[in-house]
Amino acid sequence: MDTRFDALGELAVHGANVQPGQILGVTAAVGQEELARAVASAGYRRGAIFVDVTYFDPFVKRERILHADPDTLSFVPDWAPARLLGLAARRDARVSLGGVVAPGVFDGLDSELLGRDQLPWLKESANVIDDRSTNWSIVPCPHPEWASLVYPGLERDAAYERLWEELWHVLRLDEPDPRAAWDARVGVLHASAEALNAKGFDALHLQGPGTDLEIGLLPTSHWRAGDFETVGGIRHLPNLPTEEVFTAPDPDRVEGHVTSTRPLVLKDGTIIRRLHVRFEGGRAVEIEGDENAGALRSHTSVDEGAARIGELALVDREGRIGPLETIFYDTLLDENAASHIALGNAYAFSVGEEDRGRLNKSTIHIDFMIGSLELEVTGVTPAGDRIPVLRDGAWQL
Amino acid sequence: MDTRFDALGELAVHGANVQPGQILGVTAAVGQEELARAVASAGYRRGAIFVDVTYFDPFVKRERILHADPDTLSFVPDWAPARLLGLAARRDARVSLGGVVAPGVFDGLDSELLGRDQLPWLKESANVIDDRSTNWSIVPCPHPEWASLVYPGLERDAAYERLWEELWHVLRLDEPDPRAAWDARVGVLHASAEALNAKGFDALHLQGPGTDLEIGLLPTSHWRAGDFETVGGIRHLPNLPTEEVFTAPDPDRVEGHVTSTRPLVLKDGTIIRRLHVRFEGGRAVEIEGDENAGALRSHTSVDEGAARIGELALVDREGRIGPLETIFYDTLLDENAASHIALGNAYAFSVGEEDRGRLNKSTIHIDFMIGSLELEVTGVTPAGDRIPVLRDGAWQL
Repeated sequence: MDTRFDALGELAVHGANVQPGQILGVTAAVGQEELARAVASAGYRRGAIFVDVTYFDPFVKRERILHADPDTLSFVPDWAPARLLGLAARRDARVSLGGVVAPGVFDGLDSELLGRDQLPWLKESANVIDDRSTNWSIVPCPHPEWASLVYPGLERDAAYERLWEELWHVLRLDEPDPRAAWDARVGVLHASAEALNAKGFDALHLQGPGTDLEIGLLPTSHWRAGDFETVGGIRHLPNLPTEEVFTAPDPDRVEGHVTSTRPLVLKDGTIIRRLHVRFEGGRAVEIEGDENAGALRSHTSVDEGAARIGELALVDREGRIGPLETIFYDTLLDENAASHIALGNAYAFSVGEEDRGRLNKSTIHIDFMIGSLELEVTGVTPAGDRIPVLRDGAWQL
Repeated sequence: MDTRFDALGELAVHGANVQPGQILGVTAAVGQEELARAVASAGYRRGAIFVDVTYFDPFVKRERILHADPDTLSFVPDWAPARLLGLAARRDARVSLGGVVAPGVFDGLDSELLGRDQLPWLKESANVIDDRSTNWSIVPCPHPEWASLVYPGLERDAAYERLWEELWHVLRLDEPDPRAAWDARVGVLHASAEALNAKGFDALHLQGPGTDLEIGLLPTSHWRAGDFETVGGIRHLPNLPTEEVFTAPDPDRVEGHVTSTRPLVLKDGTIIRRLHVRFEGGRAVEIEGDENAGALRSHTSVDEGAARIGELALVDREGRIGPLETIFYDTLLDENAASHIALGNAYAFSVGEEDRGRLNKSTIHIDFMIGSLELEVTGVTPAGDRIPVLRDGAWQL
């Protein structure tokens, strides 16, 4: 047994802040058994009444795309969301294991067909997050196949050890007290969010190689970072690691074009490189990239909001992920290395009550990375003044 | 990829007789991924609209028994039966993968605590079978850990190959047309069942080493074998392999004592050897055996019917499992090697409408093997005549 999984499991239930008497829902993939079991152990030791682990199998999904009637690929059984909605109704805890388990599993499939099947993503997920009914956390799970994807020049065992080392560092498990280290980092992120809130910008202008994009903000767009609180007052850390400061923009005021600075990995494992998106009136009207770009086009056509922006997040150069210059092919990590935007649903708590109706609504939420040290972020005040926000990855406020 | 899993997957969906437009629920354990994927592939190629695979992880259950509050161990989330009941409501198909994946996973645990947690078994399962709403099949899944348990004298790889060979034979996959071979064998089992039905026995008397047991039958106790039919008329083979002829007895008229002839393996993997049970007035009043017997005592105390008999099954010497003389530590296989009784719930379709109210009712159904070539089975007519049924494993009717 690899005891590093025990430490990571302990961090995960700390992030989710599992309470005695809660059910802990653990969402994992086949291949992540060791961490799932460590999370279960840690959850029970914190007093969970039950730990409900589910394993998604991307190879079963591959069989569906290959052999099922194409017209049935968007079918989802009625009972699929029962566990998620049950956890929400009971105000339970959730831990999701991130990372990659089968990098090539969807190779050679029709990306349009693949886009029709959004499982294991559930459309109810966004509501459960907005409801703030559950305390939850996502942590990455090391896997040998993932390691070989990230470090193709290393032997399998060496790659796996390297992945552990880098994740150990970015998860701050190399600190004497990882929980205190996260409290400190979340404090810094909070301060940056408050500085942005104090400026009351009307829009942000992003300029860099392949990118010239202006993103309007809503009057009550509120910058947040690091921790959430449930309706019942349980503070939790939804993403570990986390390095971002984020808000929800005005879905009708996005103009210009943007080029991704890191590969986008969809929840089903599809990797899209060299993504270039052009926006008009808030809508993504052109989505180009490598041969998998069709999967993203397919996702963005599922509903009206799927082609609009629901999140804008800024990442400074002080985080631990960016300096590694490693591409993890995993959104949780890569989005925290670089500033990013998300197509699809906005988090309701990102704005005041009066602007909730103007937020973007969608069944999807797909982050894609646009930040780099070259990306200049400039705030535009309601009066039209332009104020530097990020230059060379450093806060200017 | 091991193409033998493809053949086994094809047999499984043939057994369940998956229909176009059905959802196929596949219940597997961690470690059975290859067969689960082959079943999914075969299911989609038969026209399933969705294949819903769930993987149970016994190592997560181990963490529960070790670390959860003992008073919470029988807790089951409200949503646990949602998939099973959803499949039943839609009249869908089900495939369960049998066999062992982790022989020692519960070693060293308190068997009484272990007995409190009956998952992955759901109390709703018996009703779904009685409703005849789903067409289903259970097939065994080869696994290296299972093979090492069954053939402790062989090296790991050799044991795994030996397990494949024996399962291949008992599943009749070594026949030119395995489906036709199963049609023929089920025909023979049907004939034996009809011969028993023609006699109208009031009781069966079982005598052998360590066993002297008389089991009363209900007036309409009906002997069945091999195949079931859903309410919608879909014929299916619930167990592959199957070699048994079975009925439901009178739960109030069981007297005497019985000794198991093969180890009993509970659904959670607990193995109970040298089981000896004494019945009075239909109830199991003494349950003795090795150190795991407490787990069975715990199961039989969950409700009134759990200590009474719900099934009596006879297996002749012509089946393919018995002659191997292999102990598989798996009920699906071992029960089809030898005559057996089951503690707990009776299948409603085993008797006529007028006797349904007299059938044993329980949330459990645990088969245990009592048959051998030495076991003499004698029928007792309502007039008290004694007629030989099985001698030296051969039918006498």
